[in-house]
Amino acid sequence: MYNTPVTLPKSIQNLIDSFEALPGIGPKTAQRLTFYLLRFPEQELENFGSNLINLKKQTVICEKCFNIDEVSPCRICSDERRDGSTICVVATPLDVLALEKSGYRGLYHVLGGLIDPLNRIGPDDLKISELVIRLTSHFQFPASNFSLPTSNLELILATNPTLEGEATAMYIHGLIKDLNLTVTRLGRGLPIGSDIEYADESTLAKALEGRREF
Amino acid sequence: MYNTPVTLPKSIQNLIDSFEALPGIGPKTAQRLTFYLLRFPEQELENFGSNLINLKKQTVICEKCFNIDEVSPCRICSDERRDGSTICVVATPLDVLALEKSGYRGLYHVLGGLIDPLNRIGPDDLKISELVIRLTSHFQFPASNFSLPTSNLELILATNPTLEGEATAMYIHGLIKDLNLTVTRLGRGLPIGSDIEYADESTLAKALEGRREF
Repeated sequence: MYNTPVTLPKSIQNLIDSFEALPGIGPKTAQRLTFYLLRFPEQELENFGSNLINLKKQTVICEKCFNIDEVSPCRICSDERRDGSTICVVATPLDVLALEKSGYRGLYHVLGGLIDPLNRIGPDDLKISELVIRLTSHFQFPASNFSLPTSNLELILATNPTLEGEATAMYIHGLIKDLNLTVTRLGRGLPIGSDIEYADESTLAKALEGRREF
Repeated sequence: MYNTPVTLPKSIQNLIDSFEALPGIGPKTAQRLTFYLLRFPEQELENFGSNLINLKKQTVICEKCFNIDEVSPCRICSDERRDGSTICVVATPLDVLALEKSGYRGLYHVLGGLIDPLNRIGPDDLKISELVIRLTSHFQFPASNFSLPTSNLELILATNPTLEGEATAMYIHGLIKDLNLTVTRLGRGLPIGSDIEYADESTLAKALEGRREF
């Protein structure tokens, strides 16, 4: 024992290990965070700990849109003031958060990821069949309790403008293109506050393609 | 409510807030970590949570060297095989960890920080007076139970080679320079694996100053 370095107290090493399991946190950051927390009052550590323990106990996945909320159907799906004629298809609940902040007030459908063959995520791992069922149910029962005519339905494929996002959008579009609904995608172009000089060529090409009258 | 964005479930927002209180973790990272944890099994969240709650319950500060351990005096202070004639003065317990890995097997004194006037950390906020008492006690009671002659004592001021570290080392040196002990500092020079071409001028100057015969 004398010739090996003295190890950290077990409770400290345990927390370092827990932090290291998080994405983007390496051994040194995990150490730094843990020793920072050693200076926290006992009460704050208890709060942090019970926030972790209660994280999933107090959340459910919405049976309709697969977003995360405290109730199912979620507060968005059950809010009748929302525009029920628009469904925005996103990869994750964080995307819902971002779109909410942007002012969008329609409905959502959370896929739970994007098609990504390199990481072995295929269409069956996502809520794509659930989306198709959700959409086709409108058509199979045209006289159901949906008050809006189904042809008014707009599906916004709001996946990331990346390889995986585009592939997922194209796959979904292929499945539903025969349904009588409007399918749109988010506009591509220069992000607000950016610099044309530093824009990459594909973004600039999309910005030109999507130019609007002044 | 309809016109404001739907907020996150409370349990999710609570955990985001907890993460945001950590250094180097901003709102976006806190969100990302929290949503990543939502995919963890319940059991792992419980483990992480209890690791946080138990962090301080199972650690104490050593009464002798002020390092963090499960017992006081710590395992280092109470290990009689260690070289009791060397005390290495460091800022934090993480420095102890680094020195242990380097092979050092003497004793330590953990200051709990460095003198840093800009952040209002003065000598009284650190374990400096405790260090002086620890050292002078050797001299006041030369016939005490310390087996080593006090003149053999070496104090290594192993503070960071930064403004704060140098200031702290100089302050401590000023307090103890009249005591009959050897005071040393860690060598300065080129770090192993580095590139002379990219070394900064003060490091190179110190490396030249500290050159050794081949």
